[in-house]
Formats: sequence, structure tokens, C-alpha cells
Amino acid sequence: MCQLLAMNCNVPTDICFSFEGFRARGGRTDEHSDGWGIAFFEGKGCRILLDDRASSDSEIAELIRRYPIHSLNVIAHIRKATMGKVSLENTHPFQREMWGQYWVFAHNGDLHDYNPTQFDYYQPVGDTDSEKAFCSILNQLRNKYPRAMPSLNELFQKIETLVQDITPYGIFNFVLSNGSAMFVYCASSLFYIIRQSPFSKAQLIDEDISIDFKQHTTPNDRVAIITTKPLTNNEIWMPMSRGQLTLFKEGRVYNEI
Amino acid sequence: MCQLLAMNCNVPTDICFSFEGFRARGGRTDEHSDGWGIAFFEGKGCRILLDDRASSDSEIAELIRRYPIHSLNVIAHIRKATMGKVSLENTHPFQREMWGQYWVFAHNGDLHDYNPTQFDYYQPVGDTDSEKAFCSILNQLRNKYPRAMPSLNELFQKIETLVQDITPYGIFNFVLSNGSAMFVYCASSLFYIIRQSPFSKAQLIDEDISIDFKQHTTPNDRVAIITTKPLTNNEIWMPMSRGQLTLFKEGRVYNEI
Repeated sequence: MCQLLAMNCNVPTDICFSFEGFRARGGRTDEHSDGWGIAFFEGKGCRILLDDRASSDSEIAELIRRYPIHSLNVIAHIRKATMGKVSLENTHPFQREMWGQYWVFAHNGDLHDYNPTQFDYYQPVGDTDSEKAFCSILNQLRNKYPRAMPSLNELFQKIETLVQDITPYGIFNFVLSNGSAMFVYCASSLFYIIRQSPFSKAQLIDEDISIDFKQHTTPNDRVAIITTKPLTNNEIWMPMSRGQLTLFKEGRVYNEI
Repeated sequence: MCQLLAMNCNVPTDICFSFEGFRARGGRTDEHSDGWGIAFFEGKGCRILLDDRASSDSEIAELIRRYPIHSLNVIAHIRKATMGKVSLENTHPFQREMWGQYWVFAHNGDLHDYNPTQFDYYQPVGDTDSEKAFCSILNQLRNKYPRAMPSLNELFQKIETLVQDITPYGIFNFVLSNGSAMFVYCASSLFYIIRQSPFSKAQLIDEDISIDFKQHTTPNDRVAIITTKPLTNNEIWMPMSRGQLTLFKEGRVYNEI
């Protein structure tokens, strides 16, 4: 299986601290060593770094650790290959353009005997169940809304329906974002935390590293972090409800507002 | 304006030497300092590194120099912004998936009053003339061949026709690749060289760096390098014919075979 890490904020934020702990699980503190990838939205643009090697031993991962990229939405993934060979085309996150926006997707879990056949707009390039599911969701959204994005509420409801067609095939934890909204579906295990004022110190589980967020933030900053397993040992991570789609926007849970 | 660099080979090759000279033109030996990008195909996958800062001063460009990525097809671009602001979404190369393959495109030149309206499959994310032209070509290809790629010959002829609709709007030098074939259109200035056995030494124009290719190759290697302006001062660079589309494959000019 794999692990997911995502960040959704109200001000551009770097993910260096969380990535440091997450990255260690890609071959050092955990077994997810079959490649990794990370997508940073910057404005309408998107920077995706992919590597089919272990993140704990990757020169590109080392660059991200050193070189803070500020972003409102980040999706990262470390892979333990179960379906599809270890190769660049099978490395998450996947990206497609829809409605003049980049959409980025990463999946944790396995789908069995999942073979969608309708690929009117988007086709998978690699051979993972994950990319098939991503393309299938996008194809069905484009078939319903060919030219332009509907309202966020309508999109949320449509994605909720589409997910119900996929979950019978297996475990389908995923993160999907267009750089503004972030859709997170919890099938088996996902946790989140909202870091906001008053900020405090945090200590990574996977590395002997701590940070005092007070020194790196302003009182208005709000950062949601979503992950397969909690990354710090002195913060309260909220387990997400199984079988539930959650929309994050501007660093908070949007569909609960 | 901008500059292009592309490589098409018969064995996975690193582009470190050529990129070293090309990169210097992004703010040091020339004025193309409004961002840069490079796409490496690896199998069916594609790794794209984008930066909206100058390549001569970029930590990501420094990584590429140090860390040889081996690829059959590479497209790089350094930007001097003329249309569209300096931002990540306006940074070449652009990528879309078509027929289950990644297609990558970079453009040198300016198109004026160019406003295609048919965006059935692909829409631009940024606001450059270049991304509009790329999306327009892909939309027209998908309208003609919705599900699967035609033969290379047929595709070549169709692209040749589509280019004729765009060239009246301005200068349209471009490189387009799916990781196997590389289509190069010369509107005003492009040069190429085929490096093959017997290999010799080469000396960069923009940096005091030389290489003896004999020490880095086998007798069967064949590497085509395409660039806006020659990169070395002791090799014979072939000027490409204006108004002509050329197909490179496996390190040679394919439509002349």
C-alpha cells in the first residue's frame, strides 16, 4: 500500500517540516520505497516532482527539504507497489487538465478487477488501478459538465456519487485538488489537523525534529494537513470518518461551514 | 523571445553537457530569464521540472546539472516573456495526455491576435499564445482521431496541415513529442546536429566546458540535438529549413529515411 500527505492553506505555506517526517517512511522508517511524488500548486500552475526511487534516498526529495516551495495546495505520495510495476508513469500524483485547470490526484489502497471502459476524454498512461480511477472520475465529470466547472457544492455531490461506484472494488482513500479546493475521501485511514493561531510546537514521529510554528506564521494563517498516519506525536490528529468525502478550502473543512 | 533545446536519441542519454550551455543563456550569457522548464520522458512516464525564475540562478537547474537523468526524449525551454505574465502556469514545456500518452510542447516565437475558439478536449490553463496553439493542435488531432493515434506518417501530415493554420499569426518554432517521436517545426531559426560514431570532442560556446563523447558512448549510440542557436563552437550544426516540419525518431531525421 501507499501513504498520502496533503496540505491545504489560506496563505502560501511550505511543507518542509511535514515532508521531512513523511519522506522518512519511504524506505527508512517504513516500507514505501517504490517511488514517490509531490505536486505543488502555485497560482494556476502546478509543479510536480516524481521519482521512481525511494524518497528517503532521493536527491530530488533532498532538494524539497532544503528549498521551501510555498503553496496553497500540496499533494504527496509514497508508494509501495502492489498493482502496476515500479516506473515513472505509475508514480503518483497524476495530473490532467480539466476546464482549463490542472487537477491532481493521489490514491492509497487497492482496487481489484476494476476496469472502467469509458475513456472519452482521459486515458491512463500507466497501468495502475489508481490512474484508471482518476481518469474515470474525470471522464464522468466532463461528460456531465463538458466545458466549465459547476459550483463547488454541485461538484462535491457529483464526486460523492462517482466514488460510490468505485468503493465496491476495494480501498479507495484519495486526495484530489485543482489548486483551490481539495477533495479528500477516507475509505480506511486518513487523519487531519488544522494548524491555526495560537500556534505551538510540534515534534515529528519519524525524525528527531521539532518546530515552533509561532516563529513561522502570522495570526491569520490556517493550514490543514491530511495524512495516512499522524506525523507528529504531540498534536491532536482527527481521524476522518470512513466512507466520507471531505472538502478542504483555505485551510479548513469547507463542507462543515 | 525564447530559446528551445531538445534531444531525441536511440539509447537513454543524459543532457547534462548541452543543458549546461543552454542554461547559461537563461540570465547569464543571454536575456532569457523569465523562467525555464525541462521535460524528460522515461518510458511512458514524463518528468517535468518548471521554474519561474532564471535558469542560470535556479537550484532546480543546478540539480539537473549534477544529477544525470537518462532519457530518449527531452524538451527544454528558457523564457523571455513577451506574451503572458511570468508565472508557473505560463512556463514551457506544456503537457497534456492524448491517446493514453503524454504529449509535451514548447514554443519559440510570438503569435499575434491568435485566439482559437474550439477547446473540445483541451483548454489552456495560463494565458500564453503558446499554450493556446498547443491545445488547438491537440483538439484538432483528437477531433480527427478521438480514441487512438494514427500511423506516424498520417500524424505527420495532419500536423503539417494544422501548422499552416497557425503560422500566419506569427513566429511558430516548436518542438512536440510523445516520448517516442519528436516533431520539430522551424519557422525562423532552429539548428540540429546528429552525434554518432565516430564521436569526437565538443566545446560549449556559453561555458568553458568541453566533453569527449567517445568516453561516454558506445558505437551504436545516436543522439539528435535541436536548438535555437548552436551550443558548441567546433561541431557542424545544420540550419533547419524555414517553413518545414521535421520528424526525429531514434536519434535521426525520420521523414528523410
